[in-house]
Amino acid sequence: MTLLTEALSKICPVDAELMAQAQTRLDNKTKPVGSLGRLEEFARRMAAITGSLAPDTEKKVVFTFAGDHGVTDEGVSAFPREVTPQMVYNFLKGGAGINVLARHVGAQVRVVDIGVDHDFGDTPGLIVRKVARGTRNFAQGPAMTREEAVAALEVGIGLANEAKQEGVALVGTGEMGIGNTTPSAAIIAAFSGLPVPAVTHRGTGIGDGALANKVRVIEAGLALNQPDPKDPIDVLAKVGGLEIAGIAGLILGCAANRLPVVVDGFISTAGALVACELNPHVRDYLFAAHQSVEVGHRAMLDRIGAAPILDLQMRLGEGTGGALAMGLIEAGVRILTEMATFEEAGVAEGDY
Amino acid sequence: MTLLTEALSKICPVDAELMAQAQTRLDNKTKPVGSLGRLEEFARRMAAITGSLAPDTEKKVVFTFAGDHGVTDEGVSAFPREVTPQMVYNFLKGGAGINVLARHVGAQVRVVDIGVDHDFGDTPGLIVRKVARGTRNFAQGPAMTREEAVAALEVGIGLANEAKQEGVALVGTGEMGIGNTTPSAAIIAAFSGLPVPAVTHRGTGIGDGALANKVRVIEAGLALNQPDPKDPIDVLAKVGGLEIAGIAGLILGCAANRLPVVVDGFISTAGALVACELNPHVRDYLFAAHQSVEVGHRAMLDRIGAAPILDLQMRLGEGTGGALAMGLIEAGVRILTEMATFEEAGVAEGDY
Repeated sequence: MTLLTEALSKICPVDAELMAQAQTRLDNKTKPVGSLGRLEEFARRMAAITGSLAPDTEKKVVFTFAGDHGVTDEGVSAFPREVTPQMVYNFLKGGAGINVLARHVGAQVRVVDIGVDHDFGDTPGLIVRKVARGTRNFAQGPAMTREEAVAALEVGIGLANEAKQEGVALVGTGEMGIGNTTPSAAIIAAFSGLPVPAVTHRGTGIGDGALANKVRVIEAGLALNQPDPKDPIDVLAKVGGLEIAGIAGLILGCAANRLPVVVDGFISTAGALVACELNPHVRDYLFAAHQSVEVGHRAMLDRIGAAPILDLQMRLGEGTGGALAMGLIEAGVRILTEMATFEEAGVAEGDY
Repeated sequence: MTLLTEALSKICPVDAELMAQAQTRLDNKTKPVGSLGRLEEFARRMAAITGSLAPDTEKKVVFTFAGDHGVTDEGVSAFPREVTPQMVYNFLKGGAGINVLARHVGAQVRVVDIGVDHDFGDTPGLIVRKVARGTRNFAQGPAMTREEAVAALEVGIGLANEAKQEGVALVGTGEMGIGNTTPSAAIIAAFSGLPVPAVTHRGTGIGDGALANKVRVIEAGLALNQPDPKDPIDVLAKVGGLEIAGIAGLILGCAANRLPVVVDGFISTAGALVACELNPHVRDYLFAAHQSVEVGHRAMLDRIGAAPILDLQMRLGEGTGGALAMGLIEAGVRILTEMATFEEAGVAEGDY
């Protein structure tokens, strides 16, 4: 059995009974019933995912997958392709946005080269799982072979399996890859059938002309490659990206291991969408960190059935929204585990 | 000069030049311009408020003011009045929601008895600044005298002055007072002229009949007392609360001392509204922590001109939303102070 088929076979619904027990416990805390809103949702879902009424949140890790994209040849990004490896070095030095925000919430950042078009040699701290030196230009043919897509999915699954074994409690997804809003928009267009302009946005900040070009490139790529929306790996291979595949695999692996996973913004959610299309129970294990500025993100979240935790008008990626959301999910768990009950505190209950 | 007139005279606009300098610095960080959205807003506002491009966020304190309300005689709350002092003891033991969430973000909780109808005697940890043993029932006359309202405002101002002296960097507001959504709804109705049903909600969780009664009580109180919306202290005294006045004073004192202040939900925002009506520059110093479930909260935020940071469907009060928002504001500041620039990281800039 391959890592992929094994992970898919292990994913099952979360524990509904524990979810109900967690809510009962929350209802006995010294507060009006339901008054902590989504913090209570986070707490009961963490209980149901992990199988514990005192879910562990100690060890938090953000996996930031880096990959390049052949489609940048079409002029879809404001930044040159060299920025992907430059940012990898920045991550490893601790200077990027994800480093700052992960430190702030007590999470580690692990940087995975799954497909950067650069030879990093022996770079300390970098997890090298390079499947290819970037994808091919999907405006001229498939971005990846099916085998490459599966290999990249299995990189993510393998990292999730290792994380479970070393006691990671909460996983975050992140990415870096110049041009990667383009395959992300292509993926949601392929699955949803929505018009490309409705799901395509400015990425790192392109102007009107470049946006119109980006839409044309995605439309051409979909027309040429004809990805089959009923075959998620076909969509991923033909118009996806290596880091998106890595994220999809990480999320599948988390679900298979009952590890809660916090999905960052637009590109990460493209990965989550592929994972959920492969197995719909995956959605029970993920938290949608935030609403991205990218217009196609809402369509992805609606299709998955996930409500974003934050809306801070962010569009950086890397895992930045996920890191912030980790802090809020942990806050919900602490409500469940640390708050006093009416009985413990000697407080009278309400009469509803 | 009284504490109140002194505070009002000291409040001035924030430093626009420093706001611009902070944004320039953010624009040089290794990320697309503006891509950290509201985190960048928090950072530049913190710079403009504090007068520093490296704003301090080390010492964070949530002030939770407790007071009782004569209007509970009208059956406006699901909880008995005894819960106010019971919850004060719970705060002091560290078992309440605000204790858990403040610990989570590294903030202290300080509990202020500004008007509880209970003799706490010598209770360690409690800050006793009792102005009265609760307000009077505003359905039958003014809740407070003007002198009581000013005294309660000055309790808050005094606490802000002391906080500044001891080096507190970021202040949060919170409250506990059974019945206190009723004066809060009355305050926004009085200032805005909006119909009472449009700003009145279920508080801790009352049913339909009790909600209709609550609306009638507020309408009757406004008709009887005729608070003058052009005289914010008149509104506060006639239909407000002691803890609401304490919060209004704390916010005025923070603005006078250039201390950033995070305003929690519905009741805290009623206090912020009074402060902003007294001096419109106050709004520059405050952060609106979250969107409360209470329907009148949106009208308050619109009138102040503040956008909430979080929307987690919370309605507990105590300062809980403010504590969570503190963590996000601090994250924004860390982006400003810790993230690498393009030059430092050797990363190529974008071409927009």
